[in-house]
Amino acid sequence: MDTGGNASEDARAEGYAQQARSAFEALRDALSLAFERLEADLPRGAPFGELPAGRFQRTPWQRSDTTGAPGGGGVVGLMRGRVFEKAGIHTSLVHGELSPAMRAQIPGAEHDPRFWATGVSLIAHPGNPNVPAAHCNVRFVATRRWWFGGGADLTPMLDARRTQQDPDSVRFHAALEAACRPHAVADYPRFRRWCEEYFYLPHRRETRGIGGIFFDYLTPSDPAGPNAGATGFAAGLAFATEIGRAFLNAYPELVRGNFLKPFGEAERAQQLVWRGRYVEFNLLYDRGTAFGLRTGGNVESILSSLPPLAAWP
Amino acid sequence: MDTGGNASEDARAEGYAQQARSAFEALRDALSLAFERLEADLPRGAPFGELPAGRFQRTPWQRSDTTGAPGGGGVVGLMRGRVFEKAGIHTSLVHGELSPAMRAQIPGAEHDPRFWATGVSLIAHPGNPNVPAAHCNVRFVATRRWWFGGGADLTPMLDARRTQQDPDSVRFHAALEAACRPHAVADYPRFRRWCEEYFYLPHRRETRGIGGIFFDYLTPSDPAGPNAGATGFAAGLAFATEIGRAFLNAYPELVRGNFLKPFGEAERAQQLVWRGRYVEFNLLYDRGTAFGLRTGGNVESILSSLPPLAAWP
Repeated sequence: MDTGGNASEDARAEGYAQQARSAFEALRDALSLAFERLEADLPRGAPFGELPAGRFQRTPWQRSDTTGAPGGGGVVGLMRGRVFEKAGIHTSLVHGELSPAMRAQIPGAEHDPRFWATGVSLIAHPGNPNVPAAHCNVRFVATRRWWFGGGADLTPMLDARRTQQDPDSVRFHAALEAACRPHAVADYPRFRRWCEEYFYLPHRRETRGIGGIFFDYLTPSDPAGPNAGATGFAAGLAFATEIGRAFLNAYPELVRGNFLKPFGEAERAQQLVWRGRYVEFNLLYDRGTAFGLRTGGNVESILSSLPPLAAWP
Repeated sequence: MDTGGNASEDARAEGYAQQARSAFEALRDALSLAFERLEADLPRGAPFGELPAGRFQRTPWQRSDTTGAPGGGGVVGLMRGRVFEKAGIHTSLVHGELSPAMRAQIPGAEHDPRFWATGVSLIAHPGNPNVPAAHCNVRFVATRRWWFGGGADLTPMLDARRTQQDPDSVRFHAALEAACRPHAVADYPRFRRWCEEYFYLPHRRETRGIGGIFFDYLTPSDPAGPNAGATGFAAGLAFATEIGRAFLNAYPELVRGNFLKPFGEAERAQQLVWRGRYVEFNLLYDRGTAFGLRTGGNVESILSSLPPLAAWP
C-alpha cells in the first residue's frame, strides 16, 4: 500500500477484506436465521403473539467514492416483527479514499488515503420491554495498517434490570468471557472495561446499558516477513467471528427467556425513555455512526440503529 | 477584559449580560403567558380538548464553573399540556472560564478564557400534527468581544405543509422580515439564507423545517471610544428582543389557526417521523446543544428540545 501503489500490498489488503467479508456474511446469515426463528416461535398468547412473524427484508446498496469511482457497498437487512419491533443486520464492504479530515483520524491513512472496510452489524429493538435491546458488530479495516474491531453489548429496558447482578447480565458477560478465553489475542478484562467506558453518556453520567465487550485496533501480529501478516490476520478473523458466534449463542436464548413475560404501560414508558438515551448516545458519541455518515455510508443502515419509537417525556 | 483583569471592561461585559438577561426574562414571561393562554383557550371539542390545560413548571438551577467557582445558572420552564405535548421556555446567565478546547472555537477567548452568556430559548412540540413545531432563541455572549445571536424557525409536521408556499410559511417569514425592517443592524436576506443553511441535515439532504431567520456574531458597532460600545449594544439588544416579540406575535396565532383541525393515524405517524429528524439535527449538528453540553450547562433544559415522542419506523 505505497502511495506509489505497491500492487502486492494492495492485493493483500483487498484479499483480507474479501475474506473477512465472506466470514461476516456467513455470520449475518446465521444471525438472521436465529432472529427469524424467534419470530416464528413466539406463542400466540404472548405479548404481540397475535401479530404475524417478521422476516428480514434485504436491500443491496452501492456507493461512489469521493473520487467518483465505485466504492463498494453492502446489504441492509431490516425486520419489523413481533418479537423485534425493529431489528437490523447489515453487511458492507466499502473502499476508496478517505477525505482529508478523516485521514488525520484513521491510523495508517496519514500518507495514503486508500482504505478498505468491511463489517457486519446487528441491532435489535425488541417490542416487549422485558427483553433487553442488543448490539453486536465486528469489522475489519485496512489502510497502510489493518485491524479488527467490534464488540457486543446489552441494554436492558427496565430500570430494575439494569444491574450487573441481573441473571441476564451475568449470562451475557459469561458468554463473552468464554468466547475470549481460547484466543491469545483477546484481553477480556480490558475489552470489558473498554465497553463500559465506550458506551457511556457523560452528560447523563450513565452507561448506555450493562456492558459487554468492545475492542478496536486489534492487529494480532505485525507483518515481519512475507507471511507473518497472514498469520496475524487469521487470528484476528477467528476472534472477530467467535464474538459474533458467542452473541448468536447467548442473545436469542436471552430473548426466549423473556419474551413471554407480560408488561404494562409503566414498563413501556421505561422502555421508551431508555430508547431515548440510546438515541442520544448513538447521535452524540458513537464513532461508527460518525464514521459512516462522514464517509458517505448508507444512511438507512447507519441510522437503522435508532429505535422504532423513543420518548423524552 | 484584559488577562490582567481590566476591572472596568469586566464590569461592562457583566453589565451588558445583566441588561440582556432582564430583557430576555421579560420575553420569557410574555411567551409563557401566550402559551398558557393557548392551553386555556383550546375548545372542548378540539383534538386533546378533553385534557386539562397545561401550565409551565419553573425550576431554577445553578452551575459551578470549571474552576469550581459559582458560574451562574438559569430557570428551566417546562409545560406538558394539551396544545403543547411538550414546550420549554428557558432563561440563563452563565459565566466563568471556557475550557481549553472551547477557547479555540469561541471568538475573543483565545487569550482570556472568561465568558458571560445569557439567553432565552423556546421550543414547542404541539400534540396536533397540524400545528408546526417551532423554535426561537436569542442570546448575548461576551468574551473579550461581545455579540448577539439567535433566530426563529418553523417545522411543519405534515409532509404536504413543508413548503414555502404554505400560508403558515408565508406568514411566518413575513413576520420576521417585518421585524428586521426597522433595524439597520439586520440583514434579512442574509439571516434567512443563514437559517436555511444552518437547519440542514446533510446526511438526509433535507432542511429541518421551512426556515425563518438565524444570526450570530452580531456586534453592531466596535467600541471606538468610551461610550461607542454602549450604542452598539443597545442596537443589538433592541433587535434581539424584537425577534422574540415578532415570534410572540406570529406563532401563537399560527397555532390558533391549526389547533382545531382533526387528524388521524397517518398524520400522527408523519409527525413522529419528522420529530425523529428533529432529534437527528439537534444531536448531530446543533451548535447550541454541543456548546451547552460541553460547558456543563443544564442537561434538562438543553435536551428539553427533544420531542416527547419520536419514531424511526
